[in-house]
Amino acid sequence: MLGEDIERLIGLLAKLPGLGPRSSRRAVLHLMQHRDDQMLPLAEALSTAANSVIECAVCGNLDTVQPCRICADAGRSAAQLCVVETVADLWALERSGAYAGRYHVLGGSLNALDGIGPDELRIPALIERAAAPEVEEVILALGATVDGQTTAHYIAERLAHGTVSLTRLAHGVPLGGELDYMDDGTLTTALRGRRAL
Amino acid sequence: MLGEDIERLIGLLAKLPGLGPRSSRRAVLHLMQHRDDQMLPLAEALSTAANSVIECAVCGNLDTVQPCRICADAGRSAAQLCVVETVADLWALERSGAYAGRYHVLGGSLNALDGIGPDELRIPALIERAAAPEVEEVILALGATVDGQTTAHYIAERLAHGTVSLTRLAHGVPLGGELDYMDDGTLTTALRGRRAL
Repeated sequence: MLGEDIERLIGLLAKLPGLGPRSSRRAVLHLMQHRDDQMLPLAEALSTAANSVIECAVCGNLDTVQPCRICADAGRSAAQLCVVETVADLWALERSGAYAGRYHVLGGSLNALDGIGPDELRIPALIERAAAPEVEEVILALGATVDGQTTAHYIAERLAHGTVSLTRLAHGVPLGGELDYMDDGTLTTALRGRRAL
Repeated sequence: MLGEDIERLIGLLAKLPGLGPRSSRRAVLHLMQHRDDQMLPLAEALSTAANSVIECAVCGNLDTVQPCRICADAGRSAAQLCVVETVADLWALERSGAYAGRYHVLGGSLNALDGIGPDELRIPALIERAAAPEVEEVILALGATVDGQTTAHYIAERLAHGTVSLTRLAHGVPLGGELDYMDDGTLTTALRGRRAL
């Protein structure tokens, strides 16, 4: 019973992560009831942002300037290079505020079955960046998944002969995590990696 | 560290029901990664829909045509008038597919504290519509809240002297509802309204 325009809008919104068909319908209704102060500004903001999004040629981050704000920030150390799979991972690390170096976004992880080899990812560019004299440490912040670890392993081999020091994120029990709910792998890793108090 | 355009977009999306700042950020990232096939179409769909949304002059529904598709649908009975508080309620009833009459959207419920009287709602228009010879039944589909019931009571009084028959939605245990989780009021209502098998 709804217009084509509105059904189309509901369908497009429902593709966003976190929104399904039902919540998308609710969101569209909300927007229709706040046409001037939310719906029109959102349409404009979307189109403005869409037209200004660029992939950083240096690190692969998405931003509105080239190179991205992180690569352009002279206050961030060029000695550390943090390798992540996706821009989402980069944003998650930025949210933590715990890192002040540069990034390198691979654009995924190695997966032979899906035909994703080193050249499908930004691995050649990483090898090149890691060879720069100012880079002292490459931090592999890849997922603790099979693909993530395969990728980490591959990169480690490729960088083994360089002078750069290679590290990875610590594995263990997440803060606030209850032991009872942890899988065996996490508990084993956490136990093996125990630290003196 | 994100651009102004992107922060603005995140802020606007976060105002949608069902999205908070965190899921909005995730949604924006998703959109940035699907610029051509999702972000730009969504911007366009939003602006198209925003520019075509109209409040139906007859029933108060939101649609892209005047009068709305429901009021214009000759297949729907004009003998029944279902009174709802909001357009969201109308959509919920339409989703159920159980109703084939017309609607009347009040635009809220009476609330003396908030200064919402009959004239702030579309109650005068309802009284007028209910007086039309083709209207046989007015169904009050108002919330089972204090305000909703006050509104129902008020409308019932105003329509008491007419020839129209007045009904309200049944109250009781929702389908799939477990008795254990129901509040006392619902259980009392359900018990009092018990039906023979």
